[in-house]
Amino acid sequence: MGISLQQFNQLQNRVGGTGRKERADQDPVKRPAKPVARVILGVDPSLRGTGYGVIRVAKPFPETLAHGTVTCPADWEHSRCLVKTTQTLRELIREHQPTICIIEGLFFAQNLKTALIMGEARGAALAVIAEAGLEIYEVAPRKVKQAIVGYGAAQKIAVAKMVQRMLQLAELPAPDAADALALALTHSLENSAYAFSDPKRV
Amino acid sequence: MGISLQQFNQLQNRVGGTGRKERADQDPVKRPAKPVARVILGVDPSLRGTGYGVIRVAKPFPETLAHGTVTCPADWEHSRCLVKTTQTLRELIREHQPTICIIEGLFFAQNLKTALIMGEARGAALAVIAEAGLEIYEVAPRKVKQAIVGYGAAQKIAVAKMVQRMLQLAELPAPDAADALALALTHSLENSAYAFSDPKRV
Repeated sequence: MGISLQQFNQLQNRVGGTGRKERADQDPVKRPAKPVARVILGVDPSLRGTGYGVIRVAKPFPETLAHGTVTCPADWEHSRCLVKTTQTLRELIREHQPTICIIEGLFFAQNLKTALIMGEARGAALAVIAEAGLEIYEVAPRKVKQAIVGYGAAQKIAVAKMVQRMLQLAELPAPDAADALALALTHSLENSAYAFSDPKRV
Repeated sequence: MGISLQQFNQLQNRVGGTGRKERADQDPVKRPAKPVARVILGVDPSLRGTGYGVIRVAKPFPETLAHGTVTCPADWEHSRCLVKTTQTLRELIREHQPTICIIEGLFFAQNLKTALIMGEARGAALAVIAEAGLEIYEVAPRKVKQAIVGYGAAQKIAVAKMVQRMLQLAELPAPDAADALALALTHSLENSAYAFSDPKRV
């Protein structure tokens, strides 16, 4: 299940095209190191199953500090779900002190009611994360899949498997947690020399 | 600008049909008084202009403890607006100790993007209000207009003017604040003998 440093570099190459080593050879100018977020929180908000993941940027691969899903029973009122979600996120931030949050970006919901409910989860999460002082960026789901699996329409299970390999996790992360870890991972790749675009601040 | 007790009773009669006096004559059984919320918070959430109003149930008319709008400039990030909104609501609750919140109910947004943004404001508000321990109910805008103005498709200005009269306010409240006060007022009417339906808990 583990991957070697070489394999990890190959994974990174998918994003930016050329590997760190080759690039260093081609570019002899010593550029100042980009400021890299040390601890990154990824959040995939939903009313009854918000996924979260916290990673610390490290070599040869990022360290996974926490990941999981905030599950709320179907008979809970919206407000009760939102309180559980915000309290979990607040506790997570207090414990691991991330400075950057990557949240799943805007998307097209099936209908207005779904959009409103998705918005509720997203808004509650944004408020508590911003209040804790984190910088928040959003990344579109398609872009995350492209960065992690190399294919924008990849299936959920493919993302989870690749996240497991990239983070050297003993077990396959739960689907929503895997999505959140993938968001954090994408940002760690984007902030490296392999950055492919500027993330949007929200 | 002021209204008499008689006029206020007439306003209440619009909601329930018959006045308190007539009803007492028809029904000799002394029913136990319904528990009435003493302090009610009304909230009309939106990303850049959340309206709020706090009233205390009193005779001959409710006392207005606070009302206003949380305004956020158009160039603020969503998360920053949501933090300002939640902090304002939290401060308001700490100061006036309402036990019930009435929030504007689900509605049809113009499009998915609008629904998502409206949902964000609503979700952030719900989380902080529920965390403070308030019971939260939602009332549809049409129902509020019907209760306050007697006409479900009433214009915003008509609602504001009636709110001003019912609460004996010296000045016309700002539009979003007036909507929030109208929500709180509707609940104070609904919990009286003139109740016309059960509010939906959210």
